Parts: sequence; structure tokens; C-alpha cells
Amino acid sequence: MRALVVHEVLSTAARSRGGVSDGVQQLTYEHLYRTTLRLADSLSKRGVGRGSVLAVMDVNSVRHLMLHYASSMLGAVILTVNFRLAPDDMRFAIRHAEADWLFVWEGFAPAAGALRAAFPHHWVWLTDGPDSPESSAPSLEELVAAGAERVPEEARAVHEADPFSIFYTTGTTGRPKGLRYRHRDMLLASLGIVNHLALHRGGASCTADDVFMPAIPFFHIHGWGTVLSVPHLGATLVLPGRAGPAEQLALIQRERVTWTNMVPTQVHMLLDQADAEGAGLSGLKILTGGSPLPSGLVKRLRERGIAFSLIYGGSDQLATSISVVPPGVDPASEEAANALSTDTLPLAMVDVRLEDDAGQAVPADGLRIGRLSVRSPWLPEGYFRDPALSAEAYEHGWFKTGDLARLTPGGALYIVDREGDAVKSGGEWVATGVLEALISEHPAVAAVAVVPRADPRWGTRPVAVVQPRGPVTPEHLRSHLHGAVEAGALARYWIPDAFVFVDALPLTSAGKVDKSALRRMVSPPP
Amino acid sequence: MRALVVHEVLSTAARSRGGVSDGVQQLTYEHLYRTTLRLADSLSKRGVGRGSVLAVMDVNSVRHLMLHYASSMLGAVILTVNFRLAPDDMRFAIRHAEADWLFVWEGFAPAAGALRAAFPHHWVWLTDGPDSPESSAPSLEELVAAGAERVPEEARAVHEADPFSIFYTTGTTGRPKGLRYRHRDMLLASLGIVNHLALHRGGASCTADDVFMPAIPFFHIHGWGTVLSVPHLGATLVLPGRAGPAEQLALIQRERVTWTNMVPTQVHMLLDQADAEGAGLSGLKILTGGSPLPSGLVKRLRERGIAFSLIYGGSDQLATSISVVPPGVDPASEEAANALSTDTLPLAMVDVRLEDDAGQAVPADGLRIGRLSVRSPWLPEGYFRDPALSAEAYEHGWFKTGDLARLTPGGALYIVDREGDAVKSGGEWVATGVLEALISEHPAVAAVAVVPRADPRWGTRPVAVVQPRGPVTPEHLRSHLHGAVEAGALARYWIPDAFVFVDALPLTSAGKVDKSALRRMVSPPP
Repeated sequence: MRALVVHEVLSTAARSRGGVSDGVQQLTYEHLYRTTLRLADSLSKRGVGRGSVLAVMDVNSVRHLMLHYASSMLGAVILTVNFRLAPDDMRFAIRHAEADWLFVWEGFAPAAGALRAAFPHHWVWLTDGPDSPESSAPSLEELVAAGAERVPEEARAVHEADPFSIFYTTGTTGRPKGLRYRHRDMLLASLGIVNHLALHRGGASCTADDVFMPAIPFFHIHGWGTVLSVPHLGATLVLPGRAGPAEQLALIQRERVTWTNMVPTQVHMLLDQADAEGAGLSGLKILTGGSPLPSGLVKRLRERGIAFSLIYGGSDQLATSISVVPPGVDPASEEAANALSTDTLPLAMVDVRLEDDAGQAVPADGLRIGRLSVRSPWLPEGYFRDPALSAEAYEHGWFKTGDLARLTPGGALYIVDREGDAVKSGGEWVATGVLEALISEHPAVAAVAVVPRADPRWGTRPVAVVQPRGPVTPEHLRSHLHGAVEAGALARYWIPDAFVFVDALPLTSAGKVDKSALRRMVSPPP
Repeated sequence: MRALVVHEVLSTAARSRGGVSDGVQQLTYEHLYRTTLRLADSLSKRGVGRGSVLAVMDVNSVRHLMLHYASSMLGAVILTVNFRLAPDDMRFAIRHAEADWLFVWEGFAPAAGALRAAFPHHWVWLTDGPDSPESSAPSLEELVAAGAERVPEEARAVHEADPFSIFYTTGTTGRPKGLRYRHRDMLLASLGIVNHLALHRGGASCTADDVFMPAIPFFHIHGWGTVLSVPHLGATLVLPGRAGPAEQLALIQRERVTWTNMVPTQVHMLLDQADAEGAGLSGLKILTGGSPLPSGLVKRLRERGIAFSLIYGGSDQLATSISVVPPGVDPASEEAANALSTDTLPLAMVDVRLEDDAGQAVPADGLRIGRLSVRSPWLPEGYFRDPALSAEAYEHGWFKTGDLARLTPGGALYIVDREGDAVKSGGEWVATGVLEALISEHPAVAAVAVVPRADPRWGTRPVAVVQPRGPVTPEHLRSHLHGAVEAGALARYWIPDAFVFVDALPLTSAGKVDKSALRRMVSPPP
């Protein structure tokens, strides 16, 4: 029986006609496979083997892709370093994972410099040219040149339940948490995403004929699985490297990219860029997620003929659900766009349940809100070396997401809030996502986040933090919401107690709105 | 972590809007799930549990579908009885598998009667009405009525590596061989088929919006996995029961079926029926396989606007590959139809290799022929209780298919022949599939099979067995093939030594042309 191990994806892709492009070089999967064999051989000669931990600090590059597969072949574990973490947290993660080697892109030399001394011998430079910037550490190109093209002995001994990678996620409080992904988890989840996109009508549906450009960084669940899923399709993979919106747009046009993934903030930036250049993006398909889709963004996407789907998941649960066009609904309709922006259908073999405060099941009526737990064939076992935190979050094969959600009669999830970010006023939950969607419909609002503020009488009350794009006062917004109350779209007690205006909403390293920072901001001083 | 066990498919499907129809009754997956729970409870009370073997002799019915899932919930093993086997072989299979229970559709009462005495207490009648035809054995309906709607205790203890089902395949010589499929094997292979169809451009591509009618009997790898894959999509499943071509056509029209699976013989019969009724089948998608696609059939399908894909696999390897439209080729073109009828692309995570007589790898040049071995995440461990035969066929995770094939540079397989059916003339293989395709293009040929006949000088020489549809002589066919030789489509020495005319080609229980019977027929008497 063939095991579900990651490097088998590349050896199979090598027989396809597909390949990889980074805008400069194009190479077939066959060439990539041969080069990866040489890299693996070279690393093996230098002592990398089963259980070695290879930390990689790089953008979405061909080098980074190869390191994934070379690491897999050797039974090593790849630590994809979240380069948006604070330097202290990054060092913590590298130490906590007991990384044996560090691979650093030269563009990150300033940020990584402080780590150089800790890896005197096991340091490799990832360079855009062939040469290493220092004589005491090789470049990846030099390693490749020194390797023989043969399948390493170790490749056959890799078991699908062996760890393939480790990732550290931002903790809202305290240190980052480590999550190890088994070969099998990462394969099933990654392929699960493209299978779901292909099997269900949706905006970001895909086939092997698409040209994929993952704009989600590899450190974030391997670019939401594209490191594995695109080669497995034998499809063309376009790697944007460090590209910002302008370079992304140029790549999309030049490489005829038809599919990308991005968090909503990245989508906004890409659309701004396209608007500035007068460039059309009609026909592009975007898988987005990581934070709720503001209705203003949905409108912009629709106007431009850009199809999208929403994915729900996270580093501690991997992929859980993706939005689809409901049965019988015209994919071009506003109803479809609304469903695609909120209602995500669980992937094959994923199970979900909602519970109320008493631990009782909340029915799938599309209305009642409950605490969401998920169970899937790829759920991680827990947090790396943190049994206490693991026991809190993972129980009997279920992961407590910490999210509040509703479940439609058709089986789709509507994520209402993070539990900690939720507002519970007088014992009743206030759906801040609904509030945010309504407020963001006001023409003077660029972005908005609603967070709870402690209240002696109601428990917590909603406060809206608004990033304006024009002149606006709290009275404007209050009257806008009163309109929604009259229309029956909102309960009166959901109207925020206060509106706070900021220049820009703070973001986490994953590009999500940092609601814990906002909660602290709006809290009354102790 | 959620295990890859079969019954989880139904509990998830129960949350979808989809359901099952047999042309008489329509029921949602939720209803089916609840009914299955009651069936499982009732069986559990009667002693069915982990490791019990439940033999089922039934057509593609709702009852049969429920028995799959109830058996899975209890950790039992379902033996789907191949009712096309000779009675002796059927009895052998039931005894060899040590079946504990026998579930028999009343339509098979005459064939199953001889078995009744062997199962005095553990016999259940599958009836179209509620009542059992005899007082000493219950009907399935009666079992359902006696059960409580609760998840059986046993369901949680089922492991993905536990056997889910057992099937006996026709041996060309000797007794049928048993194959046990693990939950995980069957799930990964079944979902692998629909994933592949959705992800690649092909004729029988599908999405969750299709209406599926499996015409492949459930005993044949669970209707090529549709017992699992269609509920997993939450899609509509139409079960044809014992339907022949006329009833199949009526069901397709009435239930708006968009997707079916059939062996080529069934496709021929369906088209004949549609022609007789003047019915259009444009827009229907057919997954076909089990034997090569005659070019005459391809032509008929194209003329009628019916899309098709070819699947390659078998009970001892499960699904291996499915044909796709090659990159850059117009799906409506003849080039696409030719590729779809012969070139199958391995499914995700499936690995294939070709070897020559010396055990050396045969390159993927689309020309050279080799012995095909496959390796996949769902390969069976071997033949049930037959270690000697298993050791011959399964080695180091590879299955020796016994097929001869070519591999294109794009990674697609072209199956040339069964090794035993192949003609090797003067040390050179004669591709009988190519010969058959050319002969079947002759307007007077309804069907043809080319088989080897021992030859003292050449080793073996080809003999064509022809089922004519009009007046035809060997000279006609020889001259037809000489034309192909002139056109460079055939080597001269491939022209058969003899043409034998028969009223109908003999078929195996799986509906394939019985080449071993033909080989015996054309052999010179000893």
C-alpha cells in the first residue's frame, strides 16, 4: 500500500506536463523533482535525517517549495517560520521546536541576523543568485550542486503518521503555540480543499487546468495546502515570492493566473492596485478567508466579475469548510454572492457540532448560535509540548474552535464570532459579524470591527471601531443602524454603545483584525 | 481525529439536502440515516457485531445501500454476493468468507433457494413490500421496525483499517478469489474517483449537482464506489434496482439523471434502447470501463452528444486511472474522444510502473509496451486466505496487474492487453486492442475480440473472433486491415491468421468479453 506521505506528490507530479514559475524561471515538475533529489542527497550527507527539524524563513519561492519536499524525503520536519511574528516570538518558536538547521532568504538577513550565532554550522542562505553571501555558510544552490540525483534511503521509511511540518501560531496572549502536522493530515486536508472546490459549485472552483498563484504565505498551513495540492494536480504553480500588490497584479497578467488565495486585506490591496492601473481582473477566482468578508469587499468583487469562495479553518484545525453556491441558486445572483461570503459547507469527512452553554446540541436551524467544535480526518493531536493547553482545546477527537456559529438546515456553517470577541449583552449573544457587515455598508466606512466592552449592568456591550473613508460621525452610523432596526435586520439592543474612529484597524501577523488589541483599546481603564 | 470509516459518510450526508430515489420512493439522507440506525440496532440485538460477515444478494436498491451502512456501524463485514457467478461459485464464496447472515432479495429466491438450509436462523428476506414471504425468516422491513433510532455502541470502535467488505472475483481458472477492503481503502478509492472526475477535464466529469445513477452492480466494488461517493457529495442517488435498458432509460428521463456508470456492453444496450424509442440522451455523462471501448461505441456516443470517460482498475487493485481531455485539446474534438477512450491518467497518489521481461523499467514514451504494476493508498493486502496467490500478485506494496500497457509522456496509461490474452508473435507483442479497434470500424462488425492461438513457428498468432451485424467474410476483413497497413496504422504481421464468426461473444459475470473461453475455442484440439 502506498502511504500518504508528502514527497510522493512530487514524484507523481514529475510525470505530468505541469510545472512551476516564479516569474523569472519556469521549470517542469520533473526538473523540480530531480533538483529536489539532489538537495535531499546533499542534506542527507550533512546529517539531516529522520526527525531533523529544518526551520525555513522564506517567502513563497521555488527554494521554499523544494525544501518542503526534500525535508519530506528525509523524514525531517519543516518548520515554516512565520516571519511576521515579533523577533522574540520567532526566536522562541525556533528554539521551542528545537530546530537543527536554519534556511534564511537573504531578503530576511536583517531580521534573522540575531539568530546567526545560534546556528554557526547549520545555516543555509536562500539566495536569488547562485552564491552565498558569506563563506562560512552555503547557499541552497551550492547544496543542490553537491548532491546526487537519487531517491534517498530515508524516503521509504517515512510513515504517514510521522510529523511533516511544525508551525507556530500567534497566541493572543502569551507565547506562540506549536502545531505539528502529520504527512497524512497535511495531504488529506490540502487535497480536501481542491476536491471540495472542484466538486461543489462555488466562486473559486478549480480544475487541473487552472493556473494557481498562492498569495497566502507558505508559513500559513503551507499556503493553505497549495504546496501540495497544486503539484498533485500537475497544474501550473506561480510563486509570487515577496511580491506586493503591484507585482502580484503583473504576475497574474503575465502568467495568466486564474486562481489565487488571499486574506481579505490582500484582496482589497490587489483591487486598489487594479483600479489604479485600470486593469481588469474579470475571470480571476479567489479563495479567501482568515477573517469575515466585509460586504463592501463582496460588492467590489462582484462589480469586477471576480469569483470568490470563503474558507473557514485555522492552524489548529486545518481546513474545515468552504462556501458553495446553494442548490438551485443562480451562481451570478446576489443571493449566491451572499451565501458565498458567509455560509461554508464542511469538507468531505469533516464533522461539526454546535453546543450551548449547558453543553446541549444547538439545532441546525440557521438561527441559533452555539460554540463550534469540529472533527476531521486531519485534526492535529494537540499543541506541541503543551499537554495542558491541548487537553483544553482537543477532547475525544473534537477540537473546540473557540468560534460561535450557526448551522443552516443545508449543513453550512455561518461563523458569528470568536468566543472571546463575542458580545453577550444581558445573557444574549450579539452577532458582531452581522453588525460589522451592516456598518461597513455605510459609504463613509472603510473598515469596522465590533468588540465587547465590559459593562456593569449588561455583562458586555458592543463598541464599534471604525476606519472611515470620508467624513462620518457616530450619529450618522447610529441613524444608519436604526434604519436596519426598522427593517427588521437588527435587534435594537445590538446598536453599539460607542463608535471609536481610528486611522487603521490593527492587524495580527496573519493579516486578521487584531480584536484583542481593540478590546484593550476600548476597555475602560482599570 | 475522525477515522476514515464508511458510516461517517452517511451521518454527514444526513445534514445535506440530498437523498435517494429508486423510482418509486424518494427519501432524504437524513431519513435514510435514521432508518439505517434502526436497522443496525435491530441487527445488533440479534447478535451482529464486530467481525460478523453479512452476505447480501441484491440488486442496486435502497435496502442494499442501507445494509452497507448498517454493517459498517456494527463493525461487521459486508459480502456483496456476485449474483452472476455460477451457483457453485456463489456458494463457495459464501462459505469461504464464513458468512454469518444471508440477506436475499426475493427476486433471487430461485437462485438462493439451495442456500436456505445452510442459514436456518440467520436469513433475512429483502422484499419490495413490508412482509416476509415466510414466517421463519424476517424481512428487512420487519428488522427496521423492531430497531431503536440510536447510534450503536459498536460504531465508535470501528477502526479505519478494519475490513469493511469482502468480494469474490471471477477466477479465469479455479475458484473465485476473495478480496477484503478496509474502510479506509474503500473511502479513499471511492472519493478518489469523483475527485478525479471533478478536478480534470473529461467526459464524465461530475459535481455535487449531478444526479447519479450507478448501473454498475453494487457487488462490483460497491458500484465503483458510488455507494460511498454519492452520499458523501450530498448528491441525488438514483438506484435502478433490477432495471434493464428500457427501465434504465425511463429512470434517466424521469429522474433527470445526468451521470451513470456502465460497462461498454450496458452502454451499447442503453443506446439501442434509446434508438428504438427515438429518445435523446444528449447531456448524459457515462463513466465506463471494465473492458476496452470499441471505436464503434465511441462513434455512437459522440453522435448522440453523450460524454464519457474510461476508468481502469479492478477488484484486486480498485480504481487506478481515469481518462481525461489532454491539456490544450478541445473537449468536443475527435482527438479528445480518442484520448478519452484509451488514455487513463492515474488518480491522485496512485503510482504506476512498466517493466519489460528482464524487470527493467520501460520508459514513458507512449510506444513501448511493458507489464503494468500499480501502487496506491488503497491497494488490498492480498487475496483472502490465499497467501501463495497473494505473494505472487502483491509485492513490496505493488500489485502486478497482469496487464500490458504503454505510458505516455504526459503520464497517462494506455492498456494494451491482459498478459494472458496478449499475442506475442516472433517475440514481439501484438496490441490486440489496436487490432480490435480497427476491425470494429468495419461496418459489418458488431463486436470483435482478438485472442492468441498457439503457433509452432511464431509462439502465438492472432485470431479474430467476430460477431457480425451484416454479411461479411474473412476476405473483407483482411482487405480492410490491409488498408490500415498501407496507411501505416498496423504492422503487416499483426493481421490475424484466422477470422472466426460467432452469434455473440461470450461474456464473464462482470460483463467483460470472456477471452479465456475464446482462447479455448480457437485453440487447435490437443
